[in-house]
Amino acid sequence: MDTVNVLRAAPLMHDVLRDLASFSADGPGVTRLLYSREWGEAQQYLMRRMTTLGFDVRCDRVGNVYGRVEGARYGAPAVLTGSHVDTVRCGGVFDGAYGIAAGIAALDWLRRTYGPPIRPLEIVSFCEEEGSRFPLSYWGSGNVTGAYDLAEAPRHIDFAGISMQEAMVAAGYGREDQALPRRTDIAAFVEAHIEQGVTLERLGHDVGIVTAIVGQKRFIVKLTGEANHAGTTPMTMRRDPCAGAAEIVAKLERMALQAGDPLVATVGRLELSPNTPNVIPGSVTFTIDVRHAEEATLSAFGDAVSRLVQEVSARRGLQAETSLWVDTAPAPMHPALYGSMERISAAKGLSPRLMTSGAGHDAQMLQTICPSAMVFVPSRHGVSHSPEEYSSPKALEDGLEVLIAMLYELAYEERLP
Amino acid sequence: MDTVNVLRAAPLMHDVLRDLASFSADGPGVTRLLYSREWGEAQQYLMRRMTTLGFDVRCDRVGNVYGRVEGARYGAPAVLTGSHVDTVRCGGVFDGAYGIAAGIAALDWLRRTYGPPIRPLEIVSFCEEEGSRFPLSYWGSGNVTGAYDLAEAPRHIDFAGISMQEAMVAAGYGREDQALPRRTDIAAFVEAHIEQGVTLERLGHDVGIVTAIVGQKRFIVKLTGEANHAGTTPMTMRRDPCAGAAEIVAKLERMALQAGDPLVATVGRLELSPNTPNVIPGSVTFTIDVRHAEEATLSAFGDAVSRLVQEVSARRGLQAETSLWVDTAPAPMHPALYGSMERISAAKGLSPRLMTSGAGHDAQMLQTICPSAMVFVPSRHGVSHSPEEYSSPKALEDGLEVLIAMLYELAYEERLP
Repeated sequence: MDTVNVLRAAPLMHDVLRDLASFSADGPGVTRLLYSREWGEAQQYLMRRMTTLGFDVRCDRVGNVYGRVEGARYGAPAVLTGSHVDTVRCGGVFDGAYGIAAGIAALDWLRRTYGPPIRPLEIVSFCEEEGSRFPLSYWGSGNVTGAYDLAEAPRHIDFAGISMQEAMVAAGYGREDQALPRRTDIAAFVEAHIEQGVTLERLGHDVGIVTAIVGQKRFIVKLTGEANHAGTTPMTMRRDPCAGAAEIVAKLERMALQAGDPLVATVGRLELSPNTPNVIPGSVTFTIDVRHAEEATLSAFGDAVSRLVQEVSARRGLQAETSLWVDTAPAPMHPALYGSMERISAAKGLSPRLMTSGAGHDAQMLQTICPSAMVFVPSRHGVSHSPEEYSSPKALEDGLEVLIAMLYELAYEERLP
Repeated sequence: MDTVNVLRAAPLMHDVLRDLASFSADGPGVTRLLYSREWGEAQQYLMRRMTTLGFDVRCDRVGNVYGRVEGARYGAPAVLTGSHVDTVRCGGVFDGAYGIAAGIAALDWLRRTYGPPIRPLEIVSFCEEEGSRFPLSYWGSGNVTGAYDLAEAPRHIDFAGISMQEAMVAAGYGREDQALPRRTDIAAFVEAHIEQGVTLERLGHDVGIVTAIVGQKRFIVKLTGEANHAGTTPMTMRRDPCAGAAEIVAKLERMALQAGDPLVATVGRLELSPNTPNVIPGSVTFTIDVRHAEEATLSAFGDAVSRLVQEVSARRGLQAETSLWVDTAPAPMHPALYGSMERISAAKGLSPRLMTSGAGHDAQMLQTICPSAMVFVPSRHGVSHSPEEYSSPKALEDGLEVLIAMLYELAYEERLP
């Protein structure tokens, strides 16, 4: 790729981002739940906008929207970029939307600058990633990779009692004349996304190059002791599950610090019963969320967590029930792709950081069917899923620049792994 | 006192206990909130029953009910026994009611056996002790000692928006023609009560002789850190208030164990915000309830708790707010009285245990105006404030025996301190 100034691509990206932010249920922030009116308007907007740009535009049966720039090698597997259009409730304007806006701007700029690619280039706006309306995530990308099957849509019910099938049909999708979402013609996937963490900002890097999306184990632990009067029960006669949970949480933190990056362990939810100031709790229920980029380490740490719970509860005469209700494997990004992105970033004078993603992304689904990569841009204070989510124009443009160069290598130079 | 078999007093006690249990709002257990219909029926029942027994019966303006056996020394300060008639929601049949039933049986038996005492003997059914309807406790005994003033009744509002004044008037009290509750003519107070703890049962004692009712400090601690994504925030970049609270709770338990009996420290209520499995909490609020029978020790431990919170939060970069919202002083029982009760118990072949009361009782109000004492009987599994509350007939009768002998010494032998 020439060193043509890619900053001329930036205005379109900012424009699409600003427009997408306008499609939202009541604030604060942006709320664009799957198959809602606002969601449908956003996808319609993207289709109109990409049609105007001259892309071949289509949608599939679950509501994923694609824009395509045909390649010289007609019908060859495509190089795909993009992200998801849905948001959490009262989320920010960058999560998901940035990857779509950057992708549209990248394709437009590449085509205007270099003409048609060799490989087809596609941009996707996945219908759903957040799991904010129905109790599942990655409905968009999971239907593309085959992780989900359209036939299960009637089984998923939202908080208002509406099934995913009903919602999909009401939004204008799920029709037999619409293309099935499954794709087997994708050569590579590259996703730009905000970091949603503090690492890049704190360590002063311009972009993050993702080596793997972490796997996750989420435990629910219930410790049962003996509810008793806080005044009349001597310390030595207690079986206090709150004290037991405190010991576990404190030791868990030490174990995670000792394990070192990228291992994280979090107790985000904890509830005492009866939760009354003058009663020693009878039980406590809490979650332990553990993440790491390598299966073996994650698995060993999960085992250590179970042992810790057993050891503490046995010593304290507490009854422990531990259940594992999330157990996802780490999703590695492709070394050739992230190697290229690191090289590209450095060559552009940016300071890249090879890092794992502690949050889930569509790329973890796509990596099951094609070489995949992600570029992160810094999030101010690491805040995401909040109206306070913010990434500076400079940060967004740095990511765009890396994305453009990566897509150029893949689609124009066919430097595919 | 002769060694006459006081067991002949037991049937009346069991009878009154059984009758009192029938006055209750819907179960499970007994619910008899201050100034409720059930509460009024219970007090009416006691007045009828005591009238039948030949006691002089009266009530005061706040609804305390008295039965009196006049003494030979007419008008001399009275020896008072009794407890409270109100209950928590879904409480047991013994808490409060036992002290009333035992007192009635004691007065009846003493009068039948020995005729009129020298000092007047009185039994009281205090209107309120639990604080279950209005946000205060000891309304009955506190009006007797002057800790409360009737004029504040309009200011206290229950969960249904009804003021204590309205409720009192609706129940038939609060009238100007009714006697003011304040008493200055009480020579001594003796209260029989269930232990509401596990100590007597676990250590195999028949009765507990209370040396002091513990003082209490209750703190509310709020730790504020930084809510962040559980996946994208490295362990070293966290300010996690849940981990901070865990460290405090774990250290608090160690400190309390080191301090030794009767010090107890309890975290009974703890709440994370936002309390979501995949979010590092932004804040945690919890209570610390500390009790001890000696003011100096309680005070020193309270200071140590404050230092612990400050040290942990400062080291972890958390913001800590600590407020002390309960701060009651220990209430000593009278050494001459509890010494006598210990001697009486041992002489009867019972195994007494000198102990502090970790729960509050009417006796802590009364001890501000006269020498006071309490006798405890074992609670099965230490359970109280529950339909499962239970003390065996044998236990109740052991306590009755000690109560009768104590009242005999005070009212018939005038062995007053």
